Amino acid sequence: MSPQPLILVDPLPRTLDSICDAETKARLSALGRLAVSEDRPMPDEELERLLPEASILIGQTDMPRARLERAKNLKAIFNVETNFLPNIDYQACQERGIWVLSPTSAFAGVVAESGVAMAIDLCRGISAADRAFRAGKERYGLAANEGCFQFSGAPVGLVGFGDLGRAVRALLVPFRNPVTVHDPWLPDELVRTHGCRPAPLDEVLATSKVVFVLASVTTTNQGFLGSRELGLLPDGAALLLLSRAAVVDFPALVREVRSGRIKAAIDVFPEEPLPADHPVRTAGEGVLLSPHRTGAMPEALQLIGRMTVADAELVLRGLPPQLCRRADPALAGRLRSKPVAKT
Amino acid sequence: MSPQPLILVDPLPRTLDSICDAETKARLSALGRLAVSEDRPMPDEELERLLPEASILIGQTDMPRARLERAKNLKAIFNVETNFLPNIDYQACQERGIWVLSPTSAFAGVVAESGVAMAIDLCRGISAADRAFRAGKERYGLAANEGCFQFSGAPVGLVGFGDLGRAVRALLVPFRNPVTVHDPWLPDELVRTHGCRPAPLDEVLATSKVVFVLASVTTTNQGFLGSRELGLLPDGAALLLLSRAAVVDFPALVREVRSGRIKAAIDVFPEEPLPADHPVRTAGEGVLLSPHRTGAMPEALQLIGRMTVADAELVLRGLPPQLCRRADPALAGRLRSKPVAKT
Amino acid sequence: MSPQPLILVDPLPRTLDSICDAETKARLSALGRLAVSEDRPMPDEELERLLPEASILIGQTDMPRARLERAKNLKAIFNVETNFLPNIDYQACQERGIWVLSPTSAFAGVVAESGVAMAIDLCRGISAADRAFRAGKERYGLAANEGCFQFSGAPVGLVGFGDLGRAVRALLVPFRNPVTVHDPWLPDELVRTHGCRPAPLDEVLATSKVVFVLASVTTTNQGFLGSRELGLLPDGAALLLLSRAAVVDFPALVREVRSGRIKAAIDVFPEEPLPADHPVRTAGEGVLLSPHRTGAMPEALQLIGRMTVADAELVLRGLPPQLCRRADPALAGRLRSKPVAKT
Amino acid sequence: MSPQPLILVDPLPRTLDSICDAETKARLSALGRLAVSEDRPMPDEELERLLPEASILIGQTDMPRARLERAKNLKAIFNVETNFLPNIDYQACQERGIWVLSPTSAFAGVVAESGVAMAIDLCRGISAADRAFRAGKERYGLAANEGCFQFSGAPVGLVGFGDLGRAVRALLVPFRNPVTVHDPWLPDELVRTHGCRPAPLDEVLATSKVVFVLASVTTTNQGFLGSRELGLLPDGAALLLLSRAAVVDFPALVREVRSGRIKAAIDVFPEEPLPADHPVRTAGEGVLLSPHRTGAMPEALQLIGRMTVADAELVLRGLPPQLCRRADPALAGRLRSKPVAKT
Repeated sequence: MSPQPLILVDPLPRTLDSICDAETKARLSALGRLAVSEDRPMPDEELERLLPEASILIGQTDMPRARLERAKNLKAIFNVETNFLPNIDYQACQERGIWVLSPTSAFAGVVAESGVAMAIDLCRGISAADRAFRAGKERYGLAANEGCFQFSGAPVGLVGFGDLGRAVRALLVPFRNPVTVHDPWLPDELVRTHGCRPAPLDEVLATSKVVFVLASVTTTNQGFLGSRELGLLPDGAALLLLSRAAVVDFPALVREVRSGRIKAAIDVFPEEPLPADHPVRTAGEGVLLSPHRTGAMPEALQLIGRMTVADAELVLRGLPPQLCRRADPALAGRLRSKPVAKT
Repeated sequence: MSPQPLILVDPLPRTLDSICDAETKARLSALGRLAVSEDRPMPDEELERLLPEASILIGQTDMPRARLERAKNLKAIFNVETNFLPNIDYQACQERGIWVLSPTSAFAGVVAESGVAMAIDLCRGISAADRAFRAGKERYGLAANEGCFQFSGAPVGLVGFGDLGRAVRALLVPFRNPVTVHDPWLPDELVRTHGCRPAPLDEVLATSKVVFVLASVTTTNQGFLGSRELGLLPDGAALLLLSRAAVVDFPALVREVRSGRIKAAIDVFPEEPLPADHPVRTAGEGVLLSPHRTGAMPEALQLIGRMTVADAELVLRGLPPQLCRRADPALAGRLRSKPVAKT
Repeated sequence: MSPQPLILVDPLPRTLDSICDAETKARLSALGRLAVSEDRPMPDEELERLLPEASILIGQTDMPRARLERAKNLKAIFNVETNFLPNIDYQACQERGIWVLSPTSAFAGVVAESGVAMAIDLCRGISAADRAFRAGKERYGLAANEGCFQFSGAPVGLVGFGDLGRAVRALLVPFRNPVTVHDPWLPDELVRTHGCRPAPLDEVLATSKVVFVLASVTTTNQGFLGSRELGLLPDGAALLLLSRAAVVDFPALVREVRSGRIKAAIDVFPEEPLPADHPVRTAGEGVLLSPHRTGAMPEALQLIGRMTVADAELVLRGLPPQLCRRADPALAGRLRSKPVAKT
Repeated sequence: MSPQPLILVDPLPRTLDSICDAETKARLSALGRLAVSEDRPMPDEELERLLPEASILIGQTDMPRARLERAKNLKAIFNVETNFLPNIDYQACQERGIWVLSPTSAFAGVVAESGVAMAIDLCRGISAADRAFRAGKERYGLAANEGCFQFSGAPVGLVGFGDLGRAVRALLVPFRNPVTVHDPWLPDELVRTHGCRPAPLDEVLATSKVVFVLASVTTTNQGFLGSRELGLLPDGAALLLLSRAAVVDFPALVREVRSGRIKAAIDVFPEEPLPADHPVRTAGEGVLLSPHRTGAMPEALQLIGRMTVADAELVLRGLPPQLCRRADPALAGRLRSKPVAKT
């Protein structure tokens, strides 16, 4: 009988408990012997000692080519922080047939539901009306809805159509919004399969009353939503910034919102925590501020664990993973999302 | 050639322009000769003069039996305020085969989208986090989500399953909530047809993390959500009060919210405008206040016109109406929703 | 304590057992005292004796005005054959506030699933290929699909959009067919609510590759799908005749199918049983013959019972029925569907 | 300016015209210089001459390691027959970062719609009733439905849950069937995401009234639906064999159908063409025979071209493909579907 596979768990900034409920942890333990380093990154000497025998690595550990060569039994690396980093030699992994995986879609569900609620909030003035009410200045009925419009049926644009974009799109179905999509990494056929219309960025911006910004930040797309692009949005439009602040010219966005021309819900910021004097704090009634919290839910973290363990089970049976995203060497090098320091 | 039918339009507190866009008004004008009284209720003498010839009455005009008997050509009465009142002899209308109709579902769409957004707001702490951010006291990531839970998949209860309940239910489909329904006026079969589970009120309350209160107020159900019933809700549950304040023991609701045990979004109040010193104003972080505005949208008002005119077209062709609700003599007498003074 | 209500059950050509499973029968028995005549129509003398006390009548019993006047406690009549007949004074029922009801939608589900399967059969040549195979003349692969086309995405037309049309429409959703609808009794708004486009009959016929004929037959629409109308169908189109044969010029339909220009699935015939020498029997490969069987399923019959009992429960509580269709005096007189002799 | 990429097109048994409509062909031509061999496999000498410069290969060409080493610019190989064969060194492709792709899902849509129609045919006796009618032996109404059951709501089992299984599942949604799935290559999480319940094979068979066999044949699963397994199906169940005949003990299946215990629709056979004396031809009323034609539709073939060209466009831009399936070296070696000789 062959010995149980060795599974290295080096998950910082995550911890095993944060990403695994009891049932998932039991499934992981049943898969093999665990070597866990949670309070600090796994020390190099321990790593080097265990690596030749390890079958699975769960964590964001540095894996240059030389180290990969010593990991003779390694079958898969799971990035559980969920942003691929340049600290792995992706090319070497591909040559060796080592899966480099990440359960990136774990956050899609919680972010999407927040995003849709925030979109409706902007269209219908929900939190603004609550603020007025708390200040004793509420108005009732039609007078309370000045500047508002019905979300159902309003044209929606999605900038970025990965896991998150598709999760948002699925939630929109009963609202019957016509949806246009801009994602330069995807073929039009795929966009149409989801009942959306592919369109160039400018057209998406100019024809949508509600725009979700869901694009990853890469080496080449920083600030691609600049002053000109934001200016294309129709008066009164609602913009949801949910992926990374760096894809937007943030000062330009603040100016548009402060002027009252558009509304925005913002979950990601150029700096976090945001400086006390940052102008977006005083951008007025048209902004909905969310301190990078739409994804940071225990339910999403535990989904990370379930997706990781389910795919590790498959990989150890010689089957391809089904739930995690596979790193593409070409793209992994382009991504520039800063990982979270800690969640 | 027979003369064009006469259509009386006596829509206060609505006006014809508020409920008809240009296209709908043109359709109405094409249907017959209009006699309109918008700035004041149609004076009795004018009404009495026109009634014998009128085919359609659009408005909330008093119609006792004696007056109905003089309305020899009347085919339908459309209540465009959308709450049936006891000022019509429903029995006499039924005997005469006069349709008494109201486009009550016109508000379902705008209320439902607001309701779902407010439900997610309560579960996910959206407006509370925005308030904290504006106060410079925001926290980031997981710390910002204390006490929050994912809306998708959470058990939802609907108390009342008329037009509004069904509109809410339709929006929930992609969120995959299991949904229980309590509506004593409906057969279980109908509830199941919509993919929901019928259940007694106590069970709906005790097993749902999110409860939408959507029941009409009648002569017999005032305050049926009392202290005992609210106490059945699980800790941390979210309650949405969207139909009429009178179905709830309002002080009990305020106590539950103020204590922090449950959260609530409230769109309808015992008095409107609400007194400046009403305790719900200071019920804290767990309340989302909405000044009777979820339905009061121009889009909903114009749907009133479209539904009315479409059914009037059918009625004048001798066909049954298809979009408006028909008054049931037995029930019309039980309803006790106070009509809006003005929207 | 008031005595239990009296329920007359006079259901021929149905029997109580055919329309009620054990659970439904128990619910019915729990509602009141039953007086049942199943082997023959309830004799007049028995009827006259029981009528003054009866609260509910389940059956197709003749109910002229004089008899209705003697039925002082009657609250509802349920036609369980499901075609309203001219043997009731609908006007008198309306005046008295007696509900005249029928669970007409009970058949929609079983007919719709058959209809969709037969539509795909025609488009994809399923039963024709099976016949060729049985004859030892099958061809394989592409050669086996000459003249076939993909059903998914093909333009569909619905002629008639009552319960059955809506049931068919619901099944089409994942097939992504664009759907046009012609139904002169319905407003365009209702058709659009179901995601369909309303259109005149000629346009529906000329632009659809698959046409479902689902219209009831009335005093005024017999043969409205005549030679000219059938000639509007595109070459190779598939027509499904599922409601009543009388709405079509049947000989013209047979000619079109025999010529090979269109295909047809036919569930209803001018005479049933169909004469042995009727030309549709030899209309060739383009016809799919179904001997008035798409609706005649035990599951549908038992749904008749469940819908009837559920609405009877409501009516006896003073509430309006929710599942059965209400007879409209004007329309009930126009319908001309021949009831089934026996199912 | 860099020269246009070279694209080798060696698609037998397909031809370029069979898999590309005019628009797709134009897109392909716009991508680069085409070298096409359609009337015969590309001769070795031509292939060897062009390979060093080729960027894309469309076809099932033998690609051993030595040849791959000479293909210095090769970025992707598209198998347009859609069954991965053992004539490629998948390991070498992986090491080199050459995508090996196939638009395998192109057939899912046309097969799924046929499969659902055939399932309803078996449940509802559609083609059997048509045969009786053509023989002048039809019965009408309930008598015509002996042994039939309603498909909507009946428990469905899917054996295999790849592209085809998911396409079938999507079509079932409005029919409201509870669906269990057995697929040993997939995690339970993925099955649940599609609203299905994962279950062991025996349980799927024993609890389903309708079973779709959709599994690929591999080195290890031939005949896994044997006499014992088929015996688990409930009396009167309907089995759809749509993937490959080799996964079933075919004689056992014929015996079960001939005995009348179950019904079956069969699209794939142990030999094709099937011998004239094969016993399935005379298995009686309970079989629906389909000569390997559910997938062989021009619409599906042209989808092969669109998916291939769309992914080739991405690959040439340095982006990962999105529509085709990627060969997994481990699995590609296990698959044993015989490719079609010609479609």
